[in-house]
Amino acid sequence: MPILVMKFGGTSVATLDRIRRAAKRVGREVANGYDVIVIVSAMAGKTNELVGWVEETSPFFDAREYDAVVSSGEQVTAGLMALTLQEMDVPARSWQGWQVPLRTTAAHAAARIVDIPTENIGQKFAEGMRVAVVAGFQGIAEDGRITTLGRGGSDTTAVAFAAAFGAERCDIYTDVDGVYTTDPRISDKARKLDRIAFEEMLELASLGAKVLQTRSVELAMRYKVRLRVLSSFGEMDDAAGTLVCDEEDIVESNVVAGVAYSRDEAKMTLISVADRPGIAAAIFGPLSEAGVNVDMIVQNISEEGRTDMTFSCPVGQVARAEAAMLKAKEDGVINFHDLVADTDVAKVSVVGIGMRSHTGVAAQMFESLSAENINIKVITTSEIKISVLIDRKYMELAVQALHDAFELEKAA
Amino acid sequence: MPILVMKFGGTSVATLDRIRRAAKRVGREVANGYDVIVIVSAMAGKTNELVGWVEETSPFFDAREYDAVVSSGEQVTAGLMALTLQEMDVPARSWQGWQVPLRTTAAHAAARIVDIPTENIGQKFAEGMRVAVVAGFQGIAEDGRITTLGRGGSDTTAVAFAAAFGAERCDIYTDVDGVYTTDPRISDKARKLDRIAFEEMLELASLGAKVLQTRSVELAMRYKVRLRVLSSFGEMDDAAGTLVCDEEDIVESNVVAGVAYSRDEAKMTLISVADRPGIAAAIFGPLSEAGVNVDMIVQNISEEGRTDMTFSCPVGQVARAEAAMLKAKEDGVINFHDLVADTDVAKVSVVGIGMRSHTGVAAQMFESLSAENINIKVITTSEIKISVLIDRKYMELAVQALHDAFELEKAA
Repeated sequence: MPILVMKFGGTSVATLDRIRRAAKRVGREVANGYDVIVIVSAMAGKTNELVGWVEETSPFFDAREYDAVVSSGEQVTAGLMALTLQEMDVPARSWQGWQVPLRTTAAHAAARIVDIPTENIGQKFAEGMRVAVVAGFQGIAEDGRITTLGRGGSDTTAVAFAAAFGAERCDIYTDVDGVYTTDPRISDKARKLDRIAFEEMLELASLGAKVLQTRSVELAMRYKVRLRVLSSFGEMDDAAGTLVCDEEDIVESNVVAGVAYSRDEAKMTLISVADRPGIAAAIFGPLSEAGVNVDMIVQNISEEGRTDMTFSCPVGQVARAEAAMLKAKEDGVINFHDLVADTDVAKVSVVGIGMRSHTGVAAQMFESLSAENINIKVITTSEIKISVLIDRKYMELAVQALHDAFELEKAA
Repeated sequence: MPILVMKFGGTSVATLDRIRRAAKRVGREVANGYDVIVIVSAMAGKTNELVGWVEETSPFFDAREYDAVVSSGEQVTAGLMALTLQEMDVPARSWQGWQVPLRTTAAHAAARIVDIPTENIGQKFAEGMRVAVVAGFQGIAEDGRITTLGRGGSDTTAVAFAAAFGAERCDIYTDVDGVYTTDPRISDKARKLDRIAFEEMLELASLGAKVLQTRSVELAMRYKVRLRVLSSFGEMDDAAGTLVCDEEDIVESNVVAGVAYSRDEAKMTLISVADRPGIAAAIFGPLSEAGVNVDMIVQNISEEGRTDMTFSCPVGQVARAEAAMLKAKEDGVINFHDLVADTDVAKVSVVGIGMRSHTGVAAQMFESLSAENINIKVITTSEIKISVLIDRKYMELAVQALHDAFELEKAA
């Protein structure tokens, strides 16, 4: 029988009643003829409770014990989900990560999946079981200790199972009903997308559209797992949600798929840096070591052997970035006249695989912003994305203007 | 290094603060030179919460899923205890049942321990670890699924570990400070015993002194594990609590160790039963099949081929016993004139290994009750116990009179 992976997040299994509602969706897919692998998170709030206990007990905790404690949340949901399905006469049983066994690296609390053998669960499907309920977010290291994949690891577990079992699709049930052209809280014209390409989703996710964990999208892209994001609270509808899929599965699409934003950015400029080979490494090496997540980088045209270097980072990391730059100057690694920080900026981006074949997207973007008298401070572009830094107070206006300009309220 | 097993029940690990207090007791024994195996229960209330969820989800639940859900409680405590010990600079790590692995039968929710290999934990002790924190109450069946030992199984886990590792002693920390000569709520002269023999403890436990699970005492007796019951809330004192030990380890003791009672008993009499070979089997077979826990049995002297047969059982099982007897009469298996039930009786017992070598205990018991004008309805005796059924309203008076008569307020 074809296999379907269905993943339910914490809010979708927060109570026994919600577990029952989720189980009905699983039962429906079994009736549709699928063998189903269900990946569950801990009941909403449980993981935070467990993490709180660990942190209160031991501020610099042993991550192996953290994993032993925190993994218990998913274990409870998996058992309850299996029992709920059995009550509905659906043959089901639960698996903990170590029982599969989902093998991971030994990087406790942030482990990576190494292997998911399919024999154990596959054997039970062959014997007539219809649903394998697997505790998400956890696995087992080579030494036999429990590992967790880090926050959001349940999405990654689901995609990895879909890849290992060659599932027809991986449905991620969450509390939003799909991926939108932009944040509906900012533009009431935001429209739910029926389909979006992996690459677009990655750009949108890393820009703050926190529907899917980035790692899970990367994994889905690598193994071409068709990923569907949908709400566990809406109607049961085969066409619900947004399908995140390979570019080739998208027949028609707008040039721009969506407008993303990131509110709390800062722009930092090193004024009059000596422009010599290796200067970028001399600047960004120390920043990386200090844990600063540098995003955009712009280097001005050099004059008389000196240049200005501008970069952006989250506003909360400005102090750390300043300290790193001043130390580098002290150590004689770099030399600059001044360091200027602008902490009132935001980033707005348009994303779309259509940009690969269509020209003029950048021009239209700049024109729309100009028409609203919004000044652009930094520009960066990639193959499928154009991002600008602007004053934070214009962020909402810019998102709305761009959404209108590219007519995202209309389907392709 | 010598090994000590320390078990902490649910109330002793109910909060992070109590876990810290328990960990201090463990740290003290490590400082005393022991390698310690700590067995933990779930935080008080957790197991009930988990069981409640399972029962609400599925009234006739799959016990394998019950075990998967319910075992998570001990897992959390084990991790938190290990972290707490690490914070105190005591080298410690946690083990779940399946990691030891504590192998059990496949009787889910009521499994029995098959084997506890010592290699895994022993190896870590050899490498310098000082405390192994083990999640109590759980193990793994041959098919790789988690099992639980049933309620109170953490005591049994502790004793089994003590036996497997040849521990010097097994300390059971609970919310009472030891075993008393009788229930302090009934007699304010009740005295804590320093030592009690396994056999005495078994008689007291099954008679209602619910300090230790019966199975754990049986196991301790079989493997001669010195078992100490003590409070986790009192002073840290090497002489605290009550040592449950082999008879040979008790130098001086009173003839009677304690007075036990059971409040809700019923006495049933089959009047004028045909007295023939096999009549006892014909009566008690059907009672056993009906799930009636028959305790005391007395048969009167036979007159003209007929006799009266009296037995006691818990008052809640009277209706069941009556139905079974009437059916047996209908089926022609037995014949009797009447069936009389007295549901207002209680059982009072004196227990002591000293009875083996001292005579006159029964006579003194009957005399004391007679002095209080308490009528004895049924008597049974064993090697180390004499039990009587009396009217329930005299129960407290009888316990106090016997405690006085055998001078149990005085140590031997």
